[in-house]
Amino acid sequence: MTPPPVHTATVAGLGLIGGSLARDLAALGVRVLGWDRDPSATAAALAEGVLAAPLGADLAGLEEADALVLAVPVAAAGEVLRRALPRLSRARLVTDAGSTKRGIEAAALSLGLGERFVGAHPLAGHHTSGWAASREGLFAGAPVFLCPAPGATADAVALAQALWRGVGGDVRATTAEAHDRLLAWTSHLPQGVSSSLGRALARAGVSRAQLGPGGRDVTRLAASSPEMWSAIALENADHLGPALAAAEEALRELRQAVEARDAERLSALLREAKGWADAGG
Amino acid sequence: MTPPPVHTATVAGLGLIGGSLARDLAALGVRVLGWDRDPSATAAALAEGVLAAPLGADLAGLEEADALVLAVPVAAAGEVLRRALPRLSRARLVTDAGSTKRGIEAAALSLGLGERFVGAHPLAGHHTSGWAASREGLFAGAPVFLCPAPGATADAVALAQALWRGVGGDVRATTAEAHDRLLAWTSHLPQGVSSSLGRALARAGVSRAQLGPGGRDVTRLAASSPEMWSAIALENADHLGPALAAAEEALRELRQAVEARDAERLSALLREAKGWADAGG
Repeated sequence: MTPPPVHTATVAGLGLIGGSLARDLAALGVRVLGWDRDPSATAAALAEGVLAAPLGADLAGLEEADALVLAVPVAAAGEVLRRALPRLSRARLVTDAGSTKRGIEAAALSLGLGERFVGAHPLAGHHTSGWAASREGLFAGAPVFLCPAPGATADAVALAQALWRGVGGDVRATTAEAHDRLLAWTSHLPQGVSSSLGRALARAGVSRAQLGPGGRDVTRLAASSPEMWSAIALENADHLGPALAAAEEALRELRQAVEARDAERLSALLREAKGWADAGG
Repeated sequence: MTPPPVHTATVAGLGLIGGSLARDLAALGVRVLGWDRDPSATAAALAEGVLAAPLGADLAGLEEADALVLAVPVAAAGEVLRRALPRLSRARLVTDAGSTKRGIEAAALSLGLGERFVGAHPLAGHHTSGWAASREGLFAGAPVFLCPAPGATADAVALAQALWRGVGGDVRATTAEAHDRLLAWTSHLPQGVSSSLGRALARAGVSRAQLGPGGRDVTRLAASSPEMWSAIALENADHLGPALAAAEEALRELRQAVEARDAERLSALLREAKGWADAGG
């Protein structure tokens, strides 16, 4: 792993993603400043030697940083960015790690940060969360979508690439719009389906402990943070709605084939899914 | 593991389940006879020393067995049982390993085998299949539902318990009806949901390789055997239909909350699922 050309970086939000990023950057020799809305997370990151210095809620000290990484829930990111704004004099890069990219990009543009903003989304989420879940190496080999704001400078883009590659990410350039449209299907839809299945089982009085290994796989995401996913679903509602409708339609087709005892149709539907699964590894 | 009080057992069907059972029984010192519709599977089991002798499609040689285990797809089990019938003079137990239990029980009763039939369903399935996927120890700690036919003798029930406990199964007594109703929710529904999500993604042009780890969990079952699951869904259609409808309804509620941008409702739905997931481990 190559250290990014950054002397000091601030990580705002020290949960699974921000905490893991702070650990990796510190291990690469970057001076890391950090803040979390939970003071015990900030204290733990300091005590473990990951943070060179803790920041307060006003982010005083951020002035020293070459880069700011927002790793707070997407619903809070705009507010944190507004708080950071007066202290970004030195920062050459503002990036983030949120699961949706249009909202934070719009916030950055409205604050006049377009030249320095390169949104990021590392696919390293998990159904666990918080500083306690963070670890070094979380991003090794993980796809990281980079979405430069319209007008972002080549320097900001290069720095974002160096930062995310530095922690092992497999960087892919895209736009906020294309990202959100794709992730509605690849991430937000599976989350919604897993959660909905969990709810249907809950209402039927079936415990997760009664499921076999396959059913446990399908429902694993139901344990994800409701706050985090509610915010993501709202921000991406225009893309997620049609994706959820498509899953409903696919389920309805299966149910109708089952109800009609239509063996041929049923096999055809299941084969279509298997063909997809086998092709995708 | 305690060897079951069986000198010779016949395993019909040497795929993941039958092959693994044959391996375990042979390791326990039971003389195992076996047959598979795929002659290369039978040959491999013989070559690896798992089978003491191979049987042909007519199951000649089954006369020597104290127990018969049907481990063929549920759609084929009735036919194999009919073929076995004239050779079951010595068998004290007929059991199986199918994912649905009413159909094979009805077949056993219609053939006059009720006293000796104890249906079984080990929760040890996987999205892989065939002799090549079989292994020793597959059933260690796995729940195994036992469904004695009405009129099954105490000797047959005890022998079924000893056989499945002998290979490490965690035996649970139930009935074919209660089993099928429960499994519609705990197993067949997650399979249907995973497969339907895969199909929706296929139609949207999204490859499984584009999913993150969470989405890959949710769609893992989409790779399962269409033939096997089509037969299971048909046999359990009366229970599976309403379960699929419940999942559709849960998805619709989520979609409507997303479309209405109803943050409170969305959080409530996701919290309901998380409460269920957290309680079920």
